[in-house]
Amino acid sequence: MHSAVPELARFARAVVVGTGLIGASVAAAIKTRGLADEVIGCDGEQAQVALERGFIDRAEPDLARAIQAADLVVLAAPIAINCQLLAVLGEIASGRLARDALITDVSSTKQSVVAAAQKSLGMWWPHFVAAHPISGSERSGAAHARADLFDGHVAIVCPSPNNPPQAVSRIERLWADLGARVGQLDPKRHDELFGAVSHFPHLMAFALAGSIAAGELAADAQRYAGPGLRDTTRVAAASPDLWAGILMDNREATLAAARAFGAELARLEAVLRTGDRQALAQAIERGAAWRRALVVK
Amino acid sequence: MHSAVPELARFARAVVVGTGLIGASVAAAIKTRGLADEVIGCDGEQAQVALERGFIDRAEPDLARAIQAADLVVLAAPIAINCQLLAVLGEIASGRLARDALITDVSSTKQSVVAAAQKSLGMWWPHFVAAHPISGSERSGAAHARADLFDGHVAIVCPSPNNPPQAVSRIERLWADLGARVGQLDPKRHDELFGAVSHFPHLMAFALAGSIAAGELAADAQRYAGPGLRDTTRVAAASPDLWAGILMDNREATLAAARAFGAELARLEAVLRTGDRQALAQAIERGAAWRRALVVK
Repeated sequence: MHSAVPELARFARAVVVGTGLIGASVAAAIKTRGLADEVIGCDGEQAQVALERGFIDRAEPDLARAIQAADLVVLAAPIAINCQLLAVLGEIASGRLARDALITDVSSTKQSVVAAAQKSLGMWWPHFVAAHPISGSERSGAAHARADLFDGHVAIVCPSPNNPPQAVSRIERLWADLGARVGQLDPKRHDELFGAVSHFPHLMAFALAGSIAAGELAADAQRYAGPGLRDTTRVAAASPDLWAGILMDNREATLAAARAFGAELARLEAVLRTGDRQALAQAIERGAAWRRALVVK
Repeated sequence: MHSAVPELARFARAVVVGTGLIGASVAAAIKTRGLADEVIGCDGEQAQVALERGFIDRAEPDLARAIQAADLVVLAAPIAINCQLLAVLGEIASGRLARDALITDVSSTKQSVVAAAQKSLGMWWPHFVAAHPISGSERSGAAHARADLFDGHVAIVCPSPNNPPQAVSRIERLWADLGARVGQLDPKRHDELFGAVSHFPHLMAFALAGSIAAGELAADAQRYAGPGLRDTTRVAAASPDLWAGILMDNREATLAAARAFGAELARLEAVLRTGDRQALAQAIERGAAWRRALVVK
């Protein structure tokens, strides 16, 4: 007898609904790591791209057919298309999934998805375990997907009280098997935190890039900007449609983060106006110290 | 007879005053590319580090001795230490440089340096050609210096009307030989532009990091933040002393950029509050399009 080797999260039929950057990367990672016997992509053109790149075994545009006998369904369609999410959840509610199927998602906001799932998933609602992989890119589409997109990055699982513990641990296990470092947050806390560390910083980057784009310095800024502006504005190259959806979906937390930022910026500007260099060095040290301690892959 | 090969900018004795990150990298690049017969570093402890790393041939803490017979002097001491800059310029004014010596600098703001040089350099004032390499790092010190720091990055030369054309072209040639793509801007335009594309973005990043650091999300943000926050705040890990100096030195342009940013952010927040997703996508598209077109090494 050999000592037990921890088993991988294994699925017979994994279905990824929406095979854009994140969805196709999930599919690719599942295939590469051998976590499912079959990986199906449910999407239009993007599923064809994913199929050509070998990220899925089969493209099935019809959702009802795609999820038949599935024991893992990953919802990866952009949150912006809310009516689509509700329609997808409704289809799953009446779908013929495997009896022990798990349903999860990858969206950037969690309270609205959990509420929609509770409202629309019917008998499958306890099988839905929300999740959010913290990676991605300013790029979009299956053409930019990569099997190692989640390697070493954080994935946050946001259970609801009605989730059976083994459903939660299987989804946590799935993300660990996909290469991620797994954390757990409650959906409300998740949205507050990501309003501050992701959604508002995107709005800020859009505003910075927009303020330069609108002014007479726009052309010279394109020619002479250095790595500082490249990095502070990188996320502003993301899809405006996708991000308008995320920002609207987590509006309150984003606006709360905007208020905290606005107060801090006003404080720094006031010190700048005084002309006191040492006081300014002291005023910016708090953020500098916090940032020096930040380690993100 | 062979066809003429364009000559490199060549110097007999190059002196770098201040061998921190930028200064030691200039010295290293000059040595690696064989642009001077001798490279001297004028600094305290940092010159020892530069010497140990082979970036300079000799460390000479005494400025008057260091610049004797020099035909290139690169001022690379942090601008924050303004009194030091004036003292250095005063020493050079009475120094025994080579007759055709050139003096240049690497600081992030140009009007104040040019004004100080005009005031303090005496007979050497026409020999001073201001410059600003757009590279660097959130790190500091000779320990992080690299001979390829300027490779492919922009270096901006900011001539004054009194500079002889051949002095300007030799300094442009120097930066090209150090690996940079060379641009030319007048000092006032330079400061307006870099207030918008570098100095204000630093203040913004300090404010974002500071607003998170001050709130109760600070610890979770450290654990769960992703690449978005890493990049939007990267420059906030820079030296507060150095940046307090730069921000004070270019205060008006930084505050002008802050006003433009504030107006754009307020516009985006107002659209966010309306709940109109499509209007928000449209509002952020201007910055997104500008950023997608930005290419920075």
